[in-house]
Amino acid sequence: MREAIRDMRVRGAGRIARAAAEALARAAEAFRGEDPGAFIKYMEGVAEFLRSSRPTAVSLPNAISFVMRSLRESPPASVEEGKRAVREAASEFVVYSKNAVRVIGELGARRFRNGDVVMTHCHSSAAAAVLSAAHRMGKVDRVYVKETRPRLQGLIAARVLSDAGLDVTLIPDSAVRYFMKDVDRVIVGADAVAANGAVVNKVGTSVVALAAKEARVNFYVAAETYKFSPRTIVGELVPIEFRDPAEVVGSDWIAAHPKVEVLNPAFDVTPAEYIDAIITEKGVISPYAAPLILMEEYGVRTWLP
Amino acid sequence: MREAIRDMRVRGAGRIARAAAEALARAAEAFRGEDPGAFIKYMEGVAEFLRSSRPTAVSLPNAISFVMRSLRESPPASVEEGKRAVREAASEFVVYSKNAVRVIGELGARRFRNGDVVMTHCHSSAAAAVLSAAHRMGKVDRVYVKETRPRLQGLIAARVLSDAGLDVTLIPDSAVRYFMKDVDRVIVGADAVAANGAVVNKVGTSVVALAAKEARVNFYVAAETYKFSPRTIVGELVPIEFRDPAEVVGSDWIAAHPKVEVLNPAFDVTPAEYIDAIITEKGVISPYAAPLILMEEYGVRTWLP
Amino acid sequence: MREAIRDMRVRGAGRIARAAAEALARAAEAFRGEDPGAFIKYMEGVAEFLRSSRPTAVSLPNAISFVMRSLRESPPASVEEGKRAVREAASEFVVYSKNAVRVIGELGARRFRNGDVVMTHCHSSAAAAVLSAAHRMGKVDRVYVKETRPRLQGLIAARVLSDAGLDVTLIPDSAVRYFMKDVDRVIVGADAVAANGAVVNKVGTSVVALAAKEARVNFYVAAETYKFSPRTIVGELVPIEFRDPAEVVGSDWIAAHPKVEVLNPAFDVTPAEYIDAIITEKGVISPYAAPLILMEEYGVRTWLP
Amino acid sequence: MREAIRDMRVRGAGRIARAAAEALARAAEAFRGEDPGAFIKYMEGVAEFLRSSRPTAVSLPNAISFVMRSLRESPPASVEEGKRAVREAASEFVVYSKNAVRVIGELGARRFRNGDVVMTHCHSSAAAAVLSAAHRMGKVDRVYVKETRPRLQGLIAARVLSDAGLDVTLIPDSAVRYFMKDVDRVIVGADAVAANGAVVNKVGTSVVALAAKEARVNFYVAAETYKFSPRTIVGELVPIEFRDPAEVVGSDWIAAHPKVEVLNPAFDVTPAEYIDAIITEKGVISPYAAPLILMEEYGVRTWLP
Amino acid sequence: MREAIRDMRVRGAGRIARAAAEALARAAEAFRGEDPGAFIKYMEGVAEFLRSSRPTAVSLPNAISFVMRSLRESPPASVEEGKRAVREAASEFVVYSKNAVRVIGELGARRFRNGDVVMTHCHSSAAAAVLSAAHRMGKVDRVYVKETRPRLQGLIAARVLSDAGLDVTLIPDSAVRYFMKDVDRVIVGADAVAANGAVVNKVGTSVVALAAKEARVNFYVAAETYKFSPRTIVGELVPIEFRDPAEVVGSDWIAAHPKVEVLNPAFDVTPAEYIDAIITEKGVISPYAAPLILMEEYGVRTWLP
Amino acid sequence: MREAIRDMRVRGAGRIARAAAEALARAAEAFRGEDPGAFIKYMEGVAEFLRSSRPTAVSLPNAISFVMRSLRESPPASVEEGKRAVREAASEFVVYSKNAVRVIGELGARRFRNGDVVMTHCHSSAAAAVLSAAHRMGKVDRVYVKETRPRLQGLIAARVLSDAGLDVTLIPDSAVRYFMKDVDRVIVGADAVAANGAVVNKVGTSVVALAAKEARVNFYVAAETYKFSPRTIVGELVPIEFRDPAEVVGSDWIAAHPKVEVLNPAFDVTPAEYIDAIITEKGVISPYAAPLILMEEYGVRTWLP
Repeated sequence: MREAIRDMRVRGAGRIARAAAEALARAAEAFRGEDPGAFIKYMEGVAEFLRSSRPTAVSLPNAISFVMRSLRESPPASVEEGKRAVREAASEFVVYSKNAVRVIGELGARRFRNGDVVMTHCHSSAAAAVLSAAHRMGKVDRVYVKETRPRLQGLIAARVLSDAGLDVTLIPDSAVRYFMKDVDRVIVGADAVAANGAVVNKVGTSVVALAAKEARVNFYVAAETYKFSPRTIVGELVPIEFRDPAEVVGSDWIAAHPKVEVLNPAFDVTPAEYIDAIITEKGVISPYAAPLILMEEYGVRTWLP
Repeated sequence: MREAIRDMRVRGAGRIARAAAEALARAAEAFRGEDPGAFIKYMEGVAEFLRSSRPTAVSLPNAISFVMRSLRESPPASVEEGKRAVREAASEFVVYSKNAVRVIGELGARRFRNGDVVMTHCHSSAAAAVLSAAHRMGKVDRVYVKETRPRLQGLIAARVLSDAGLDVTLIPDSAVRYFMKDVDRVIVGADAVAANGAVVNKVGTSVVALAAKEARVNFYVAAETYKFSPRTIVGELVPIEFRDPAEVVGSDWIAAHPKVEVLNPAFDVTPAEYIDAIITEKGVISPYAAPLILMEEYGVRTWLP
Repeated sequence: MREAIRDMRVRGAGRIARAAAEALARAAEAFRGEDPGAFIKYMEGVAEFLRSSRPTAVSLPNAISFVMRSLRESPPASVEEGKRAVREAASEFVVYSKNAVRVIGELGARRFRNGDVVMTHCHSSAAAAVLSAAHRMGKVDRVYVKETRPRLQGLIAARVLSDAGLDVTLIPDSAVRYFMKDVDRVIVGADAVAANGAVVNKVGTSVVALAAKEARVNFYVAAETYKFSPRTIVGELVPIEFRDPAEVVGSDWIAAHPKVEVLNPAFDVTPAEYIDAIITEKGVISPYAAPLILMEEYGVRTWLP
Repeated sequence: MREAIRDMRVRGAGRIARAAAEALARAAEAFRGEDPGAFIKYMEGVAEFLRSSRPTAVSLPNAISFVMRSLRESPPASVEEGKRAVREAASEFVVYSKNAVRVIGELGARRFRNGDVVMTHCHSSAAAAVLSAAHRMGKVDRVYVKETRPRLQGLIAARVLSDAGLDVTLIPDSAVRYFMKDVDRVIVGADAVAANGAVVNKVGTSVVALAAKEARVNFYVAAETYKFSPRTIVGELVPIEFRDPAEVVGSDWIAAHPKVEVLNPAFDVTPAEYIDAIITEKGVISPYAAPLILMEEYGVRTWLP
Repeated sequence: MREAIRDMRVRGAGRIARAAAEALARAAEAFRGEDPGAFIKYMEGVAEFLRSSRPTAVSLPNAISFVMRSLRESPPASVEEGKRAVREAASEFVVYSKNAVRVIGELGARRFRNGDVVMTHCHSSAAAAVLSAAHRMGKVDRVYVKETRPRLQGLIAARVLSDAGLDVTLIPDSAVRYFMKDVDRVIVGADAVAANGAVVNKVGTSVVALAAKEARVNFYVAAETYKFSPRTIVGELVPIEFRDPAEVVGSDWIAAHPKVEVLNPAFDVTPAEYIDAIITEKGVISPYAAPLILMEEYGVRTWLP
Repeated sequence: MREAIRDMRVRGAGRIARAAAEALARAAEAFRGEDPGAFIKYMEGVAEFLRSSRPTAVSLPNAISFVMRSLRESPPASVEEGKRAVREAASEFVVYSKNAVRVIGELGARRFRNGDVVMTHCHSSAAAAVLSAAHRMGKVDRVYVKETRPRLQGLIAARVLSDAGLDVTLIPDSAVRYFMKDVDRVIVGADAVAANGAVVNKVGTSVVALAAKEARVNFYVAAETYKFSPRTIVGELVPIEFRDPAEVVGSDWIAAHPKVEVLNPAFDVTPAEYIDAIITEKGVISPYAAPLILMEEYGVRTWLP
């Protein structure tokens, strides 16, 4: 599982989070022994191991914290009880996570008006849920999908949204400003939301937001609350992962041009001032209300050691 | 030649202009007959025919006007004289055009400071000339080149600039805002410059300009004066060509997704307020001085019929 | 009462809210029967009925929730007890609401400096309370009042403020930018405050805010906390009511020009980024702190079903 | 005629200009005497007299200069010759002026695209000519017309454009930002264009321009070149006329509220940075090219005494 | 001590706060008598006296409130117990305050990236702590320090930061925009943080923030939470102190130019929209989260009487 | 004279220009010989020598070109004739230059309205002429003068303007944004005006312009046309001179802090978009009309060698 997460075979912040919860449950089952203290120690090792697999994914440690809290808050009297606690917490997380996307879809769809033309970037389950719900409510028919180089996740989004019945127009990333004039609202997903309301998402998101701002187009982010990053409260920057340059031009071209550097950052940061609202499963909030979510989820006093 | 221009085998506004001038010269040679009037009429037909091959290229009619002016201003006494006039004007245009790129390179390079990091979009001979000259002057070493989907002209630029000795970093188009913070100046070419100083160039240019403006990065356009569009004075919008959607995702994908529309605009329009200077072979001007260039080249009174 | 509210005979978010509270009290008195369960059911019907009278007024359901909470939280043992609970809650709301305007006046007035020239739009009791208090404190003497077409509520504001001793200058709505250069601060009321800090108020408010932003003029909103809209947390847009076109040009003109459509939106939405502070009876807050108010008033967990 | 101009019975910069030209012609006819010098002196008195009738109208002195130039440049040998010169110049100006509106209509219409939704403010013959031409070309069907308080010239525009076949929606001035999101382009007329490209037009124009800028909507001004103000080159501000307060609220209301000041500025100034293009009969130019027009019309050296 | 604070011999919001806490402890020791009620009354007099010494320093009343709360929350049974309570609270505050600067240094340093060039204004212990920590972590080497006229606190900052090992470049205040292009981040301290996230700091701070915003440079404020001003919630403006004009030009120049007024405001106000984050000892927050800090420290209900 | 110019004993672009003209006249007088060719060669050497004394002053080569043109355009038949030509041209330049400041004062003053409060930066004869003229016209009474560190030219301006009868308020440079809200217009001088309308002036000018833009305050530049830089047309950046660091903190402080770098740039560049008008002796123009002035003064064709 760790390999699958690390190698990006498991993709998407939500799927990674659920995979981590399930990995913890399976690791718990696999424990052999009778000492509850040893079990807790073992599980903490597993948690640490999983955490290190994708250091930039905020949803991963949040999911692990959710599951591990069940052990920490009421230490089990027996290994059996501990296993059950982990199993139930993991299961609860998976249900919560899947439910969150559905609720986001419903809450977000209410933000749209009849006839709205929408643009999206990359593929996000939460953003797609909003668009599908808005389409079912008869509000949204047309959506521009950016191809999202280099991995072309836009093609996935185009297929998913087209299957959901929307009229999809696929465009190259560079055409974002050209088509922005026809757009009423933008919706994207998020990999992480920082304490100051900035959103980390697939590279290119910030430039869509900039072009939307320039044209007075509403820009929404759909994000489950376990993507809010408590570490940013203590000053940590969300690290930007650089992926394999071969995704951009292929290894042949790179080999043929040894003097040309090729850089492939996976994410960029959209500042809060370009974001009109973040749609979470707990409500539609201003990005500046991100600290409220963090405070509610993690408490103020737990920020510092 | 017309087919070569139309089918985009001849690419780049400068090359198209020179090809048109040469095509006129060759057509003149091919004329059989002795009546100068018939010759002029024939040449006007050829000119009209060439003009229609790429209706969106501003440099094309400007080159044709340059050559044909030799006939209109002093009607030849004989076909022979007419052929010579066309031949000389065409030759003069080609020399002027090639020279213009070199002069732009030299004038533009003076705008840079030692250590400047530059970004460019698409491939433009004039922009490359500026970067090469600035590099030879020891001012510029590093340049970010955007890949410029869907036709990846950025790869050509990367190779050309790397061969010229610059340290090239190739990036996906979406990463434009991520890397803009490291950049001191942007330089791009132009397909056309409108009377209000707006620049028509490869799609994506306007979003680079927007991101440069946001970060207080100077944005320069390198453009020969025959790219200034007199038609925009009389109200014409520069038409934006839509190219084959298969350039974006390939025809297989399109066939497999019949309900997804794919749009592939070739150009976009960058407003003058995002442009710090246009580097022409006649000097470095504010985009708002575009009418001066038009007035000098075409005269005020000739704008209207 | 319902008719009075619906027909806009009762106007102003505060008055509507108080009228609703009183209507509930009167409806409770009118109940005949002894079964407390039937009483509650009856009251809920009345509440629902009142709620539907002005679907766009946020203060209406908030006032009704305030009163009805007295029944829901501790179900009465008898009808008599229920009637008393409703009566007392309604009375408490009316006192609170009237008091709120006074407190807003005092808190808001402290925001002004001696000699400030102020602009206002439409007529708002809360904004007028702030201006009167600031005038009594010797801080504000001059106020620009926009006429606020089509119903000319600016004329009411002009009279009220002039009676309060201020020097009033009445101007047409279109002159907003012309006079903005002379203005130090703007203050307006609100019909509703959304979870993202956006303010819904009489149409034209957003354009005053835009012109104030352009000129670095502070823009304040005076709003009681029962105007904060909890429904916007669950994604609802505050609906914009369209009123009778005859208010704009008269029915004769409309009849004489059957092909001309006349639209008369009652409100518009001012984004939080144009608002410097919202003055509530609980303190002067940033619009971005709207979720705090909502959380305190309604609790986080009650947002979702 | 002077009274008609002064009392605003003759309205609109174009009509005023033509009326002034015709008044000069009639005054010339009325001259009795044989001394050409006396005739010139007499005409200069008439010109001065007309100039003073509406000191804020730029088109008035420009029209007078046009006609009087015929006398100044080649002083007539006889009164008869002088009268003919004046008559012909006046007639030429009237033809030119009427023709200018038509040419502006044609040039401006080319700036629009199929399906554009347009907004306009006040009533301007030139702007209406553009919209009618664009409608005839099948490009524009829908236009928002602001009522333009206090004199409601928007109602004239609504009727004229509706008669021309457009679908007209009349809105209150305050709703400008509410509807701006549905608009693709704005077009207005001008009373004067200053040397720095700023446009003086009916009060409220600048706030439409601001809202258009905020929403990335193109803002065009339609203006004949005789509205360009050479006096602004020598530092004069275009004076803003204040009209009768009774236009705003009626004299009864004013009498009943003696302590309320009512101000009624006729014009405001839209800065060049909010204007995308000025459509003149000589071409479509950037507002920053206003000095070019002035230089061509009046010459550089004539700016100073 | 009061004199030392008032006369600015004790400078810096942190030092003033600690001096006030210690003054309270010493005043408590000096009390002679046995009646706990008289002791409390005496201490409240002392507190009031201290509060009045520097009315503009937010940290002063906050420190006094912290210490006095120990008496108010659990009234002492004896004077001895009261003295101990004051002594311990004062001591706790001093420790907390010194610790806060260290924690801010550590949290803030994490916000920087390797190679960041930083600018700072005036001298702030908290900002210097951040820069020193970032330097120790190998992230920051170069810092621009503005001289900060008229009292030249920048020279202190230059020395402190140079001693800490950073490469310091001292520049005149006016050169802020010239050098901003070389800067990656700005960090300054604060005298007070208002409820709407605005920061009051040494005059000139707001213009640095404006230039940073223009150039997309991150702007951070380092501030202990006892600098957050609860009074601004009830509408109070943070008053801007005007200091001795002789600090600007010397008393000789002033005497020689009696007709020239010289003004020397000590602080200015930087609006929240120009601030990317406030680094407190409780975490790194958006300025818009200031109400959260205030709510946590002082409670919502204590804002109003 | 050359030393006086280089050592900044002669200060101000206008004085430098006149000093250069006079130096040429004196050098001409000093020539001994009879060969007109030798005289021209000698004078060109002098011109070159003078040009190199202050390479960053645009007015210097412009003044020299003005005088030397008299020799180049009509080569003198004798040394005597040459001396006379130089003498007359130098004298003409001095008269023109002094006259220019007066005309600028008069033209600029018309731009102001009664009661305008003005801010200025550094000391400029042209800006002071405008303010004095506006004061004489009864329009301007109050002016904020920034001290203009490090050389405190603001103190000169304060004295000059106070002597001219204005109410002067002297403020530290850092207080620019604090006082901008009270200001209606800003006026400054210029050291050079570039072809794209950017203005080079005393460091700090660009940050005043930025703060003026933020507050919708008009920003004017007063500049004689011989400050327009033809070299910028051919791509040259106007070089920014760095002056002695000891001007900033004194050489003692520098000696005591050897590890602190002190930088003292003399000028900065204000982009055209922050400038509302440039007041020249030839009229009040938009900065975007700078090319017109250059074209008129130097001709288009002379831009390139």
